[in-house]
Amino acid sequence: MTDGDDDVPLILTWDDATSGLLQDDENGVGNYDIVNNVAIPTAGAADPRGQNSLCQSWEMNYQEAAIYLQEGENNDKFFTHPRNAQALRAYLFAHNHLFYVMELLTAVLLMLLSLSEAPAVPFLRLDVYVHATLELLALVLVAFELCMKLRWLGFHTFIRHKRTMVKTCVLFIQFIEAIVVLVRQTSHLRVTRALRPIFLVDCRYCGAVRRNLRQIFQSLPPFIDILLLLLFFMVIFAILGFCLFSANTADTYFKTLEDSIVSLFVLLTTANFPDVMMPAYSKNRWSCIFFIVYLSIELYFIMNLLLAVVFDTFNGVEKMKFKSLLLHKRSAIEHAFQLLVSRQRPDGVSLKQFDGLMRFYRPQMSARDRFLTFKALNQSGATMLSLQDFYKFYEVTGLKWKAKRSGEYWFDDLPRTAFLIFKGINLLVNSKAFQYAMYLVVATNGIWILVETNKLHEGVSWTRVVPLSYIIFLTIYGVEVLLKISGLGPMTYFSSGWNLFDFSVTVFAFLGLIVLAFEMEPFYFIVVLRPLQLLRLFKIKQRYRNVLDTMFELFPRMASLGLTLIIFYYSFAIVGMEFFADVVYPNCCNTSNVADSYRQINVTFGNGTKLEEGYYYLNNFNNILSSFVTLFELTVVNNWYITMEGVTSQTSHWSRLYFMTFYIVTMVVMTIIVAFILDAFVFRMNYSRKNREPLGDPEGEKGIVFETEVSQTEALHTLDLYKHTFGISSLSSLQDMCVALERSEQSSLVFLGRRSRTKSDLSMKMYEEEIQEWYEEFSRTNLQPDETFHRDLGSPEASATDSIN
Amino acid sequence: MTDGDDDVPLILTWDDATSGLLQDDENGVGNYDIVNNVAIPTAGAADPRGQNSLCQSWEMNYQEAAIYLQEGENNDKFFTHPRNAQALRAYLFAHNHLFYVMELLTAVLLMLLSLSEAPAVPFLRLDVYVHATLELLALVLVAFELCMKLRWLGFHTFIRHKRTMVKTCVLFIQFIEAIVVLVRQTSHLRVTRALRPIFLVDCRYCGAVRRNLRQIFQSLPPFIDILLLLLFFMVIFAILGFCLFSANTADTYFKTLEDSIVSLFVLLTTANFPDVMMPAYSKNRWSCIFFIVYLSIELYFIMNLLLAVVFDTFNGVEKMKFKSLLLHKRSAIEHAFQLLVSRQRPDGVSLKQFDGLMRFYRPQMSARDRFLTFKALNQSGATMLSLQDFYKFYEVTGLKWKAKRSGEYWFDDLPRTAFLIFKGINLLVNSKAFQYAMYLVVATNGIWILVETNKLHEGVSWTRVVPLSYIIFLTIYGVEVLLKISGLGPMTYFSSGWNLFDFSVTVFAFLGLIVLAFEMEPFYFIVVLRPLQLLRLFKIKQRYRNVLDTMFELFPRMASLGLTLIIFYYSFAIVGMEFFADVVYPNCCNTSNVADSYRQINVTFGNGTKLEEGYYYLNNFNNILSSFVTLFELTVVNNWYITMEGVTSQTSHWSRLYFMTFYIVTMVVMTIIVAFILDAFVFRMNYSRKNREPLGDPEGEKGIVFETEVSQTEALHTLDLYKHTFGISSLSSLQDMCVALERSEQSSLVFLGRRSRTKSDLSMKMYEEEIQEWYEEFSRTNLQPDETFHRDLGSPEASATDSIN
Repeated sequence: MTDGDDDVPLILTWDDATSGLLQDDENGVGNYDIVNNVAIPTAGAADPRGQNSLCQSWEMNYQEAAIYLQEGENNDKFFTHPRNAQALRAYLFAHNHLFYVMELLTAVLLMLLSLSEAPAVPFLRLDVYVHATLELLALVLVAFELCMKLRWLGFHTFIRHKRTMVKTCVLFIQFIEAIVVLVRQTSHLRVTRALRPIFLVDCRYCGAVRRNLRQIFQSLPPFIDILLLLLFFMVIFAILGFCLFSANTADTYFKTLEDSIVSLFVLLTTANFPDVMMPAYSKNRWSCIFFIVYLSIELYFIMNLLLAVVFDTFNGVEKMKFKSLLLHKRSAIEHAFQLLVSRQRPDGVSLKQFDGLMRFYRPQMSARDRFLTFKALNQSGATMLSLQDFYKFYEVTGLKWKAKRSGEYWFDDLPRTAFLIFKGINLLVNSKAFQYAMYLVVATNGIWILVETNKLHEGVSWTRVVPLSYIIFLTIYGVEVLLKISGLGPMTYFSSGWNLFDFSVTVFAFLGLIVLAFEMEPFYFIVVLRPLQLLRLFKIKQRYRNVLDTMFELFPRMASLGLTLIIFYYSFAIVGMEFFADVVYPNCCNTSNVADSYRQINVTFGNGTKLEEGYYYLNNFNNILSSFVTLFELTVVNNWYITMEGVTSQTSHWSRLYFMTFYIVTMVVMTIIVAFILDAFVFRMNYSRKNREPLGDPEGEKGIVFETEVSQTEALHTLDLYKHTFGISSLSSLQDMCVALERSEQSSLVFLGRRSRTKSDLSMKMYEEEIQEWYEEFSRTNLQPDETFHRDLGSPEASATDSIN
Repeated sequence: MTDGDDDVPLILTWDDATSGLLQDDENGVGNYDIVNNVAIPTAGAADPRGQNSLCQSWEMNYQEAAIYLQEGENNDKFFTHPRNAQALRAYLFAHNHLFYVMELLTAVLLMLLSLSEAPAVPFLRLDVYVHATLELLALVLVAFELCMKLRWLGFHTFIRHKRTMVKTCVLFIQFIEAIVVLVRQTSHLRVTRALRPIFLVDCRYCGAVRRNLRQIFQSLPPFIDILLLLLFFMVIFAILGFCLFSANTADTYFKTLEDSIVSLFVLLTTANFPDVMMPAYSKNRWSCIFFIVYLSIELYFIMNLLLAVVFDTFNGVEKMKFKSLLLHKRSAIEHAFQLLVSRQRPDGVSLKQFDGLMRFYRPQMSARDRFLTFKALNQSGATMLSLQDFYKFYEVTGLKWKAKRSGEYWFDDLPRTAFLIFKGINLLVNSKAFQYAMYLVVATNGIWILVETNKLHEGVSWTRVVPLSYIIFLTIYGVEVLLKISGLGPMTYFSSGWNLFDFSVTVFAFLGLIVLAFEMEPFYFIVVLRPLQLLRLFKIKQRYRNVLDTMFELFPRMASLGLTLIIFYYSFAIVGMEFFADVVYPNCCNTSNVADSYRQINVTFGNGTKLEEGYYYLNNFNNILSSFVTLFELTVVNNWYITMEGVTSQTSHWSRLYFMTFYIVTMVVMTIIVAFILDAFVFRMNYSRKNREPLGDPEGEKGIVFETEVSQTEALHTLDLYKHTFGISSLSSLQDMCVALERSEQSSLVFLGRRSRTKSDLSMKMYEEEIQEWYEEFSRTNLQPDETFHRDLGSPEASATDSIN
C-alpha cells in the first residue's frame, strides 16, 4: 500500500499543522494564491514527513481537489469551500445523493401537506393533529439539514449566505405556526404557507429552478419599466373612457373611474372584447376608434415591446451566465491542479494523482475508465498532464467508454447463416423503400382512423369497439419493431429517440388491446392514444425533425420552467385558498354582472326538464387542486374576469388586486418562457448556420466522441502500476481490457468515449473567439468569475439576486 | 451654351446611330459591359461630331445616369431600363410625381367605391349607374397608365413583368364586370372586388407595402410547416376529445368529430376557454388534464415555435434584403459613373458633369447645393471624383446644406440688452432645476386630474366643466413653451421631437379652452386629450426616451405594416359583404348556442322596463365600415367564435372556413408584426451596444452630418464656371454664397449638410465587416445583385415572389 516514489504534494491541505493558519483566512477565495500559478508553499509543508503521513496527505489533497471540481461543476461559490477537517466531515455528510434525496423529499412532503390541510382535497383530508405533526416532523428534518450546513460553512459564512438566511427565517416562522396549530387544534389564516416552496427551491436538485428564478429577477427591471408605460397609458385611456362613455347609462363598463380602469385592464388581456365596446358602439359607431387605438397601442405595440425588451435582456444574461460558469469551472480546475502536482514536478499531474482524484470525484468509475479518461485528457502523449490538458477536464469526465467494435453489426460474431439472415433484415430496414412503405401505412392508418371516427355516432363509447383494421395495423407496427430491433441490434435501435418513440407507442397500443381483452375499466385511456402513431409521419420532413429534436433538447429546461411556474402557482393557490375558499357556489353572484356564468337552473322544455348550468362555480379555490385548475384558467386569460368578478362580488373589491397581481406575474413568467423558446431556437439555427452543419443529422453521430488508442504494453504497465497501488481487488475492468487486448491479437485497441451534446458544448463553439478573450481577461485581471459577471451585467439587481445562488 | 473644353463622353447613349444596335440587346443587364470597369466604346461612338451634337449627347448621358441612379434608389430592376429615345419619353412621362399621384388617387378611388356600392354605408349610398360609371372611369385611367408602361417597357419586357401582367388581367376582369353592372343596372356577386387592392399595391408610393407583402410571402414556407404541425396535433386531440367526451350528452362541444375540431380550433385561440372544458370538468375533474396538455403543447409551445421560426426567417431576410439593396445601388452607381466620364479622362467625373447629372436627378436642388454635394463627395480634394468617391453618392444626396453659424445662439446678432435677456432665458430653460420643476408640475397635474375625475359622479358630462386648476396648469405650460421658444430659438426648439410634442399638446389644450368658451359641440373630443400632457413625464428616464425614440423611428415601417393589414382587411371585408351582408340581426340566431349574444329583449324590473341586449348583431358585414370593425374584433380573437357561430347558424357551416382562414391570415400578419418589432428593437439595442453609443442621445446631434469648407477663390471660380455654362439666371444661390463669403471677411466658410439617420445607415455600421466581403464577392462574381439575393435565400418561393417587385 505504499507509493513507489516519494513525491511530495506541492500544497498540503487540511493538515493539522496548517489548519490554524487557514482559519484566519477570511477573503473567501481559498487558502493560497493559486490563480497566478505561483506556487507558494504554505507553512508546515516543508516539514519532512514519513511515507505513511505523506500518503495520507496525498489522499487529503485528492479529496479537496475533487471537492473543488465538484464546486466548479455545480457552480458553488468558493467561499463556501470547507476550510478544515471538521468542516470537511460535515461537507461530505451534506453532499451525497442520500442527503439530497432527503432534502428533496422533505420539501415535497411540506408542499404536499396542503393537499390534506383544511381546505383539503376531500379524499385526502387528514385530522389537524396528523398533518400538523407531519409538518413538525418535516420542519425538524429541515432544521437538521440547516445545522449540518452551519457546521460545514461556519457561522460567519452561514449568515453571509442570503438564501440560507431566508430559509432559516421561514423555517422559524413555520415552526411557530405549526406548534400554534397543534396547540389550538385548528388552522388559523396561514398565508405564510405560501412561502413553503422556498424549501424546494433550496434543494440541490432544483438548481435549474433557482437559475430560472434568477433569470426572472434579472429581467424584471426593464420589464417593470415597460409595465409602467403600459399602466400609464391604461390610466390615461381610463380617464378618457370615463369622460366619453360615463354619460351612457347602458354602459356598465365605464360607470366610475375604478370601473373604467378595471375594464381597460381586462381589455388589455382582450378577455372582455368586444363586449366592453358594444354599449358605446351601439350608441355611436365612431366610438370604436377609442378601443381600436387603445388595443393597437397597448396590445399590439407595448406588449410586443415587453417581449422585445425581455428577449434582449434574456439574450445578454444567457451569454453572461455561460461566461461566468465557464470561468468558474476554469478557476476550479486551476485550484484542483495545484493540489495534484508534486513539489518535484510542479507543472504536471501524473496518472497516479489523477487516478486518486477520480476515485473521489467519481467513485463509481471503473479503473479502466479512469485510465482512459486520463489518456483522453493527455493528448500531447507526455507522461504528465499539463494545466492546458487539465482545462478540458469537464469535457471528458462524462464520457462513456466502449471498445470500438471491429465489425459494423451486432451480429458479426454469429454463424454464417444467421449472419446472412440478419444482414438481409438490416439491409431491408435501412432501405428507403421500407421507410416509405411504413410512412404509407401510417398515413393510411391516419385516414382510416379519421374516417372511422367520423362514421361513429355520438354517444357510442368508441373505446369499447375493436375494429379489425386496428388489429391489422398493430400487427404491421409490431412486425416493424421486431424487424428493426433484429436488423439494427437492440443497442443501435434504442439509441435513437424516434425508435424509442415508435417502440413505446406500439407497446402502448398492445397494452391497449390487452386492456380491451380483459375489460379493465380504469385503463381505457390507453386505447385512446392510438392516433399518436400518426406522429411518426413528421419524420419525413427535415424541418420537423429539427423542430422535434430541438424540442427534445429543450425538454429539461422547459420542465424546469414548468416547475418554476408551478412554484408560483403554489404560492398563489395558498393565498387564494386562505382568502377565497368556498366563496363561490351555484347561483352565488346574483349581484354582479357575471351572474349568468354562475347560474344553475332547471329549464323546462317541451319534452322535459333540463339543467342549464353556468359552470363557473367550478372555478374556485376550495382545495389546492381546484385552485391549480383555476389558476391555469387565469393563465390562459380568456374569460378570467368572470372568475374575478364572481369572487369580487362575494368578497370585497380588493380581491381584484389578487387577480391582477397574478396576471402580471404569469405575464412575466410567460414572457420569459416565450423569450426562452425564441432564444433557444434562434441560437440553434444560428449555430447550425455558422457551422454549416445540417440541423440534427438524420441518425446518430450526434454528441461528443473522443477516441483513445491503448497499446498492449501500455495496458500491462498500467495494470502493474495499479496493482502496486491498490492490490488486485477492484481492478477487474483493467484486467478485462488486457485480456481483450491479448485476444484481439492486435498491438492496440481503440476505445470510444461518447456523451450527448449539451447546450454548453454548443455555446463553446458559438462563442469560440470571445472565449479566448474572456480567458485572457480572466488571467490578466485575476478577478473571481462571479465578480466579472456582475461587472458585465452592470445592474445592482443582478448582483443582489446572484449572490443568493 | 457651348462647352469650354471638348471632352467627349466615353459612352454615347440613346444615340440614333447606336439605337439600332441596342434594340437587339436582350440580356437585360444594359447595353455595355460596365461592371468590370472596362470601357468598351460602343459602335458609333468614335464618329467625329460637332460641338452642338456633343453637348446634346452629354445631356442625354446626364439623363440616363440620373435614371440609373433613380432606379438604384427605388430598387427598380435594370431590365426595365428604357432602351431608346421613344421609351425614354414614355419613361419620363410615367416617372414624375404628378403621374404617381394620379396612380394613387385612381387606386384609392377604386377602393373607396366599396363605401357606396351595395351594401353601402347608409349616408354614402350612390345609385348603381353613378358608382359603376365612376368605376369605369377609374379603370380607364388605370388602363391608360398601363399603356404608358407598355410603351416604355416594350412588349417583351412587359409580359415578363409578372406584377404588371397580374394587374392587366385583374383590370380586364374588372372592366367586364363594371360594364355588366352598368348594363344590368344591378350588382351581381362581385367577389373579384376583393382584388382591387392590387391597383393600390402596384402604386409607386406603396413600395413599402410591396416589400411587406414580399416578406410575408418569404416567411410563409416555414410558417406553413409549423402550421401543419399545429393542425396535426389539433386533429389528433380532436379525435381523442371526441372519444373521451362525446358520451357526455351535456357536452355540446364534442358531439361530432367536426364539432370537436371546431372546438379545438377555437380553443387554440383560447376564445372558448374555460367554457369548452366545463361540461367535461363538471363530470370528471381529471378531464382538465386533456385541456391543459392540449393548451401547453399547442398554445404555449407550437405557437411560440411559430414566432421563433418566423423571427429567424425574418432576421435572415432583413439582412439579405439590405445586402441586395446595397449591391443594387452600387451597381447603379457604376452604371451612372461610366456615363459621366469622358473619353479623355475615363476615371473621373468633373464638377461640370456632376452638375449636369444633378440637374436631372434633383431638379429642385440649387446650384450652391449641387456644388456643395460635389465637394462633400470629393473628399480627396482632387478636381475629379473617382469611382470610390462616387460610391458614396446616396449618402450625400439627401443632405440639407446650411452655412455653419459663427455664434452659438440665434440671438447673437441682437443688441446687447436683448442678448442678455435671451441669454438668461436660455440658461434658465437649459437648467436641470427648470426641467425638474416642470416634471413636478406635470406630475401634480396628473394627480390632480386623477383625483378630480374620481370625485366626479357618473353621468356628469365632464367635458363641460372647466376647473380652475385646468386654466392654471395650462398657463404654466403656455409660459414654458414661450420661454423655451425664445430661449432656444424656434429652429432649435422645433428640431426636437419632444418639444414638438409639448407644443402640440399645449396648443391642443388651448384649442380645447376655446372650444369650451364657444361651446362648439363637435370638437369636444379635444378637451378630452388633456391627460396626454402626462406623457411628458416619460422623458425623465433614459429607457423611456429610447423606447419612444425607437417608436418614432419605427413609425413609417409600422404604418406600412398597418396599411398591409388594411389591404388584407379590405379583401376579406368584400368577401364577407358578398356572402354575409344582412344575415345577422337582433334575435336572429336562436338555433345556435350563442343565441344569448344576439338577443334583444325587454326585461321588466320592479321599477320599469329595461332593454337587455346581446349587441352581437352589431358585429356584421352590412357595409364596409362595419365589416372592418368586425374584422378587427376577429383579429383581437376574443369571443370571435360568437360572430362565427352567429353567421354560421344563419348560413351554412362552410362559412366557418371564411373565419378560420381569416384567423390564419391575421395570425401570419400579426406574427410578422411581432417579429418585426422584436427584430427592430433587438437590432437597435445591439447597434448601440456595439458602437458604445447611448441609445438616443438626449438632445439633437442625431442624424448624419457632413462638413464642407469653401474658400473664397473656389467659390468665385465655381461661379465663373457656372456662368459660362448656363448664363446668369438660376445662380442666385451661388451668388448669395459669394456675397456671404465677402461679408464674413474670412477666407472660407464652412457648410454643414444634415439628414436624419435611416435604418440603412444603422445597418451599414452593423454589418461593416460583412459589407466589405459582399463588395469583393460582388466585383469578383459579377453577378446581378438580385441573383445573389436569390442564391443566398436559396428558396424557390423567394425568387418567385421577388421578381414581382
